[in-house]
Amino acid sequence: MDERIPGTTYTPHGEKKETAPASRIMLFNGSASADLGAEIAAALGVPLGRYTRTSFPNENIFIRLNESVRGQDVYVVQTMCPPVHENIFELLIMIDTLKRDSAGRINVVIPYLAYARSDKKDQPRVGITARLLANMLEAAGADRYMTIDLHAGQIQGFFNIPGDALKAFHLMVDYMAAKKIPDLVVCSADLGFAKKARDWAERLDTQLAIIEKRRTSNDSTSEALSLIGDVNGKNVLLVDDEVLTGGSVVNAVNLLRREGARDVYLAFTHPFLAGKAAERLAALELKEVIVTNTLPIPPEKRFPNLTILSVAPMLAKVIERAHLGMSVGELFNE
Amino acid sequence: MDERIPGTTYTPHGEKKETAPASRIMLFNGSASADLGAEIAAALGVPLGRYTRTSFPNENIFIRLNESVRGQDVYVVQTMCPPVHENIFELLIMIDTLKRDSAGRINVVIPYLAYARSDKKDQPRVGITARLLANMLEAAGADRYMTIDLHAGQIQGFFNIPGDALKAFHLMVDYMAAKKIPDLVVCSADLGFAKKARDWAERLDTQLAIIEKRRTSNDSTSEALSLIGDVNGKNVLLVDDEVLTGGSVVNAVNLLRREGARDVYLAFTHPFLAGKAAERLAALELKEVIVTNTLPIPPEKRFPNLTILSVAPMLAKVIERAHLGMSVGELFNE
Amino acid sequence: MDERIPGTTYTPHGEKKETAPASRIMLFNGSASADLGAEIAAALGVPLGRYTRTSFPNENIFIRLNESVRGQDVYVVQTMCPPVHENIFELLIMIDTLKRDSAGRINVVIPYLAYARSDKKDQPRVGITARLLANMLEAAGADRYMTIDLHAGQIQGFFNIPGDALKAFHLMVDYMAAKKIPDLVVCSADLGFAKKARDWAERLDTQLAIIEKRRTSNDSTSEALSLIGDVNGKNVLLVDDEVLTGGSVVNAVNLLRREGARDVYLAFTHPFLAGKAAERLAALELKEVIVTNTLPIPPEKRFPNLTILSVAPMLAKVIERAHLGMSVGELFNE
Amino acid sequence: MDERIPGTTYTPHGEKKETAPASRIMLFNGSASADLGAEIAAALGVPLGRYTRTSFPNENIFIRLNESVRGQDVYVVQTMCPPVHENIFELLIMIDTLKRDSAGRINVVIPYLAYARSDKKDQPRVGITARLLANMLEAAGADRYMTIDLHAGQIQGFFNIPGDALKAFHLMVDYMAAKKIPDLVVCSADLGFAKKARDWAERLDTQLAIIEKRRTSNDSTSEALSLIGDVNGKNVLLVDDEVLTGGSVVNAVNLLRREGARDVYLAFTHPFLAGKAAERLAALELKEVIVTNTLPIPPEKRFPNLTILSVAPMLAKVIERAHLGMSVGELFNE
Amino acid sequence: MDERIPGTTYTPHGEKKETAPASRIMLFNGSASADLGAEIAAALGVPLGRYTRTSFPNENIFIRLNESVRGQDVYVVQTMCPPVHENIFELLIMIDTLKRDSAGRINVVIPYLAYARSDKKDQPRVGITARLLANMLEAAGADRYMTIDLHAGQIQGFFNIPGDALKAFHLMVDYMAAKKIPDLVVCSADLGFAKKARDWAERLDTQLAIIEKRRTSNDSTSEALSLIGDVNGKNVLLVDDEVLTGGSVVNAVNLLRREGARDVYLAFTHPFLAGKAAERLAALELKEVIVTNTLPIPPEKRFPNLTILSVAPMLAKVIERAHLGMSVGELFNE
Amino acid sequence: MDERIPGTTYTPHGEKKETAPASRIMLFNGSASADLGAEIAAALGVPLGRYTRTSFPNENIFIRLNESVRGQDVYVVQTMCPPVHENIFELLIMIDTLKRDSAGRINVVIPYLAYARSDKKDQPRVGITARLLANMLEAAGADRYMTIDLHAGQIQGFFNIPGDALKAFHLMVDYMAAKKIPDLVVCSADLGFAKKARDWAERLDTQLAIIEKRRTSNDSTSEALSLIGDVNGKNVLLVDDEVLTGGSVVNAVNLLRREGARDVYLAFTHPFLAGKAAERLAALELKEVIVTNTLPIPPEKRFPNLTILSVAPMLAKVIERAHLGMSVGELFNE
Repeated sequence: MDERIPGTTYTPHGEKKETAPASRIMLFNGSASADLGAEIAAALGVPLGRYTRTSFPNENIFIRLNESVRGQDVYVVQTMCPPVHENIFELLIMIDTLKRDSAGRINVVIPYLAYARSDKKDQPRVGITARLLANMLEAAGADRYMTIDLHAGQIQGFFNIPGDALKAFHLMVDYMAAKKIPDLVVCSADLGFAKKARDWAERLDTQLAIIEKRRTSNDSTSEALSLIGDVNGKNVLLVDDEVLTGGSVVNAVNLLRREGARDVYLAFTHPFLAGKAAERLAALELKEVIVTNTLPIPPEKRFPNLTILSVAPMLAKVIERAHLGMSVGELFNE
Repeated sequence: MDERIPGTTYTPHGEKKETAPASRIMLFNGSASADLGAEIAAALGVPLGRYTRTSFPNENIFIRLNESVRGQDVYVVQTMCPPVHENIFELLIMIDTLKRDSAGRINVVIPYLAYARSDKKDQPRVGITARLLANMLEAAGADRYMTIDLHAGQIQGFFNIPGDALKAFHLMVDYMAAKKIPDLVVCSADLGFAKKARDWAERLDTQLAIIEKRRTSNDSTSEALSLIGDVNGKNVLLVDDEVLTGGSVVNAVNLLRREGARDVYLAFTHPFLAGKAAERLAALELKEVIVTNTLPIPPEKRFPNLTILSVAPMLAKVIERAHLGMSVGELFNE
Repeated sequence: MDERIPGTTYTPHGEKKETAPASRIMLFNGSASADLGAEIAAALGVPLGRYTRTSFPNENIFIRLNESVRGQDVYVVQTMCPPVHENIFELLIMIDTLKRDSAGRINVVIPYLAYARSDKKDQPRVGITARLLANMLEAAGADRYMTIDLHAGQIQGFFNIPGDALKAFHLMVDYMAAKKIPDLVVCSADLGFAKKARDWAERLDTQLAIIEKRRTSNDSTSEALSLIGDVNGKNVLLVDDEVLTGGSVVNAVNLLRREGARDVYLAFTHPFLAGKAAERLAALELKEVIVTNTLPIPPEKRFPNLTILSVAPMLAKVIERAHLGMSVGELFNE
Repeated sequence: MDERIPGTTYTPHGEKKETAPASRIMLFNGSASADLGAEIAAALGVPLGRYTRTSFPNENIFIRLNESVRGQDVYVVQTMCPPVHENIFELLIMIDTLKRDSAGRINVVIPYLAYARSDKKDQPRVGITARLLANMLEAAGADRYMTIDLHAGQIQGFFNIPGDALKAFHLMVDYMAAKKIPDLVVCSADLGFAKKARDWAERLDTQLAIIEKRRTSNDSTSEALSLIGDVNGKNVLLVDDEVLTGGSVVNAVNLLRREGARDVYLAFTHPFLAGKAAERLAALELKEVIVTNTLPIPPEKRFPNLTILSVAPMLAKVIERAHLGMSVGELFNE
Repeated sequence: MDERIPGTTYTPHGEKKETAPASRIMLFNGSASADLGAEIAAALGVPLGRYTRTSFPNENIFIRLNESVRGQDVYVVQTMCPPVHENIFELLIMIDTLKRDSAGRINVVIPYLAYARSDKKDQPRVGITARLLANMLEAAGADRYMTIDLHAGQIQGFFNIPGDALKAFHLMVDYMAAKKIPDLVVCSADLGFAKKARDWAERLDTQLAIIEKRRTSNDSTSEALSLIGDVNGKNVLLVDDEVLTGGSVVNAVNLLRREGARDVYLAFTHPFLAGKAAERLAALELKEVIVTNTLPIPPEKRFPNLTILSVAPMLAKVIERAHLGMSVGELFNE
Repeated sequence: MDERIPGTTYTPHGEKKETAPASRIMLFNGSASADLGAEIAAALGVPLGRYTRTSFPNENIFIRLNESVRGQDVYVVQTMCPPVHENIFELLIMIDTLKRDSAGRINVVIPYLAYARSDKKDQPRVGITARLLANMLEAAGADRYMTIDLHAGQIQGFFNIPGDALKAFHLMVDYMAAKKIPDLVVCSADLGFAKKARDWAERLDTQLAIIEKRRTSNDSTSEALSLIGDVNGKNVLLVDDEVLTGGSVVNAVNLLRREGARDVYLAFTHPFLAGKAAERLAALELKEVIVTNTLPIPPEKRFPNLTILSVAPMLAKVIERAHLGMSVGELFNE
């Protein structure tokens, strides 16, 4: 029988060899989340994973890791900002590369998940691209996912792997609460966001108003807005999950002003800010616009009254707890 | 070379044999949808599939088909009313039985899908049972699904197989529109139902009001209701997707009355009506309660002002179109 | 290059952080095995896993873990007694919940597996529900299974995951051997149990007799029993794997008495004891009835000459060995 | 809009083109079942599928179909006689080839399934090779399977695809019944075959006897046989499912003779007849040995009192019914 | 019993209803293959499938079919030209949409497959993106694939679904053969293409020469070219599978000229022609450049001596044969 | 709350129990690699895993592990020499056995992979057996693979699990380089091996020549060889990946001699050496034949000028690094 110590390997001459180390956190930042990834790595106190990314003349992306990930607990941070499909594919290629280098566990950290509004067949003969995207990530080899403020919480169910669907809510609402704004009303920018707006109102102890959109003709592009609830003479905090072109926000703020609102604040998690969105928001004379850095905001889109709250500390804590096998729920006192 | 006609089989002496018939619709009604299944079969003009169901002393269910389903296009109608888990398992066993008898395509028709509210991790350390249920149906061998008025449309994305998430909306809203009730306001019974309530209001061309629920303490069981919008002096149509115990409805109707509502109508798709729910609704002196038969309603729960609209004609048409490879969307002019 | 120690994480200032702990045993007892689970936990010296189970008015089960299971080696004990389907679903939901909380390994401990007699197509157009059940457990996310005295050992092959199909045989036969009963004959209650009965006879060094059942008409419900072998003037140990209604046992004991048996002992693993089974066994004037606690036996079904042997010590040892990566076979000197 | 007839294709000038033919039966005989496959094809009145099989110097098998199978209902007949693993692999390669040529449905017809006795973990640290084999067939792309007289019916549950586990029982028992042998007793060659032997006895209306094997020492190779039941002065029909070396049969027949049996008949489905088995059986002076042709029997193993019943007519009928979507159960009046 | 005709459905009053039509070809052209798809449809005599493609401000693609595909045999033509990742994702979304609309069979026709050079780990810690791409297509729901001149034939094995890896070889070599160029030598542009170049030489009955590239330093970017074989005083046909930037071609042609070549022809299948590639080729004073239209070539890249051979007729014939269940191999006399 | 130390188990009385050991390397040598496996184990300093292999009279293989592998990092060394299919199946059964005994990670080490030339559909209606083989290994339960000198590197993409496709190139080329042979030319035995031959030439700093084979008629069996490049008056190193019958080598060497070659060396990785191959090579009067031991070479095939280089040290190092989570690439300075 073998009398040697289990878990230890020996040379042919019986000397003990180095034992297999327990896995450690390795964090790679994708090209769409270069800054955020670096910020998380700093908060975790781990070096960024080193890799080379090349783009060939045929646009094909090539990734080569510059250090081994065998058996390690790997986190890849990649948000889904433009160029969206290239960034998605870079993430998929990274996952495949990690899998084929025998990573111990592959965690994808996606601060902003694309295609979240393609989450159901609300008309015939369309697909459900958010589920397709979840399938792609799983088929590539992801073991866990993390994301922030999904457009619909149900998207968690599109994944068959475990994950953390985090919320920037506490981060943002605590920031607003500290301002102690009097006579405040929370207004949901959309009927579909009403339930989350209620959580804002509950936490800030204010009334709730809701903006209703209704089609004015068969042409789905023209909409009429109306306000359910009362904002007359009140300061208003308009809340939503993301802003693309800013068109809806402009209409909403105009409606609020017509209904007698005083100062208007705007808070939303994901600053996609396509095209002239930043200019439009800047022109609205809002008291303050509060967002997070789930998507990178280039300097030219950072208008004066824009406040950017970083999700990096939260992500760092969640990654650490996920790695150590500790409860993530406790982090939020849930 | 073989000079015989492709697609035809021959006896050893060269006579032609009967060719393989194209598949036909076979419809089986599970024990939870005995009546609805029979109604659909009648509408389709097909006989009900014949099978024997036995329940052994150890509660194990045993199913034996009394006719072959090889190669056929089979539909199993089974809703998820009490006993819920036994009915789910009966459906899973039926699917496995059909699969092992080489059914051509197995379509599950689930008028009311259980566990639809367990559709996301809205607190830590819980599962997503609706996705689990979808996985079970797929693992058992279902090829397509049909269901009606999912609690959240996103549940469609929990399935990887194609399906039809039908809506009883047209059926119910047309019934209400025909009444031409003056001074009507549509009121959503819940913030989460606000978007669907808007569709009711849009179709009936009325204002929209919404009931907001807010926790009054850390104890999640006590809630305070308030109304966003105005119902004073109006007839109100309170809309929701299902009623379990009726407790929320009682509170909502009391609030509407306090806010000055005149006649109150109640419309919801799924009449689960657990325990004393039917008695509670009957005692509310509502003008009319409109539901469908996605769940069976025993005679003792059919109170006087209850109107039950049958989903059988809609399901029969959709089944026929699914079988013939015709568009289901066109059926609803979508 | 990173000069830090692999397997160790650091704060931004270079202090070492707590390392990821090795996984530990966490044991949850399902509501069908509350007592047995507690007994196993005590034998293992681990606290029972804490969770909350709620049943909503629509019968939907809701489970919330009260402690994190991330990375741990989790065991869920749940037998499949009535309400059978609810207990099965509770187990599936528990597995999904553990998976989505990132449990390290999910082991299901099912002392009595339901649907074990639905293990083949012995007539046309039926399913194989035991395989369906195995598929459900795997699809939900189980990594390993343990069970006791499967009706057919081949059911192990229905699982694609590793497992331990344990036997209560040693526990029971050792108990009987200690009695040193003279002139004993082992009698198999059924032709299908003959091979296992032979193991009893071999271990107790006795003759073997077998009861044969034969259909007396096309009606499958009427059976004629006869005895193959000789029990005249002998003490008889009648052996089987489970007793549902007790009907077969009554007939078997009557036959043994007609054939001249003296004292009759009855031993079977799974005391399902549906309906009046306990009363029937009590009325049979057996010398002793020996069973295990794979299924809970309520006090009112515990008749005087019933001996219940606990499988908890065996399960505790097997769980410990499975956790430590030690041989389970050695436990039984196999 | 397209006014052309659905299901019909057109040339650019609008002439109708040949429409897609309905699928037809194509039957390929593997090299292990060359004769049986040809016999089935003749019974079906279809030509044998044409293909080339090459074995390279490195033993690698190469298969090329000589006609297209796109969209057809293909049946491959291949039993698992020696060289067993080469025959299994030939079947797997054939399945892969058919799949990649877009066969409509791939049915494997395996008259004798290898590894059927490796169907459970009856000792620690062994595999379940029969399940592995089922997995291999499914992973290669088989859609349905047919097989005859599985060692254990539960092996059906190792497959997740539909199948027909046929029985040669009717074929063999009818042959014996026609002999109207007086004073007959059916004797099971093994305790594990007792239940199937009962079916023989029931159909022939005879008594049942059973041979019991017991280990005589820790050394598993030495066995002691004894007879349960009575054969004195009777003609005996010894039944089993397969004979490998004939060693057990020799012992069984000697025991029966010692117990006073008159004529002894032997019936078993699968004539594996390894090594000197045929010589041993021939030397036993049995009245008649009845087998089927699920395995090929070379001329030199065909001793005088050997009767071979062909399973080809049964397989042909089952294939035809499977193709036409007709009930297979009705074929056996089940 | 049901006496109605199988395969026919009836109204409640017994009239026959329209029967399910056999599936027909539906062909959709993705936005990367708009012209090629239209050309194929015209050759097949089928109308192009109608759908709407929208690109939202967040770059998310939205596809809605304008006609039902239930049960049909659908072909989607989409090449992988720039923007490569957007075109890949459009194809994946199209597949998902077709799957969820219950298409009968989904065939993807990819004239040029991206990532074909990422087909192995030829250095450590890289992925195999071509396999990832195959997995994505299968996970989305593709049932079959067609593609032309894969960089390596082995990529067929990355797919588990059946497919046709077609060759433009016959199309191109027949075009060259018709020119009857005297004193011709075929030259492979790369060692890896040598085997395919041999097929050209064999068909044109010429000598074969090969260009060898060798790294001149550790720096992998600098290469030295040399010629194996003899082209002095000969006309040369330089062959390859694709041209990206044209850099290698320029070096190869210069080498051939230095080695004494007379007229130089260039033939390659895939005209990726990134950046200034077209200008470079035009400047080379080649006798003729022969390519196919597997990738769209915008007018500004069509230089005078460029000959574009269309693959549309070949694809149309293969699609028709795949649909009708006829042999594709016969099309090429293979 | 539980105050005990995580990762530690306790007895009921609170004493600490042995903790779960970290996994260790366990190495099993299959019957096709008995010697190589033992050599690797010695190099690693680990004992060979103990198991019993039995072959029953029906050729079925039975494997029983003689020690537990629960949770361990297991390596199975099995090459695919004759009897090829039996050896493949032995490996599959071993994997299944390890999986069902709950091995932590199952690594298959296959020095020579069979069916590597069946890697694409290069003619219609054939399969891709190498992909089938990869699927079989994955379906059985392999977690990682290692292999040496794949016929085509793309076969790595047939696996969806991570793996190490190692090269014997460094081992062999270093051996040759040490000889410092003057006037050397490397000659590729086949156009398909040209790229790898270039690596030999680059490393040895020699010219490259290539043998071209061309079909001389429609009959694919007759080939004409010609030489591209120049060997006149040179020493030649003929390189290839494997030699089956030696027929091609004989023709190649004869051609080289006709073209004026002086000494001829032959190097290839896999010495399959079927039939009379060894005799043929011995008769060729080669200066030296260099191979590895990826396949066992029986003593009677070891002719005088045959040099066998062992891959065991390389495999031992790679296994150790794979186990410890260290980079394999660094081992080769890549």
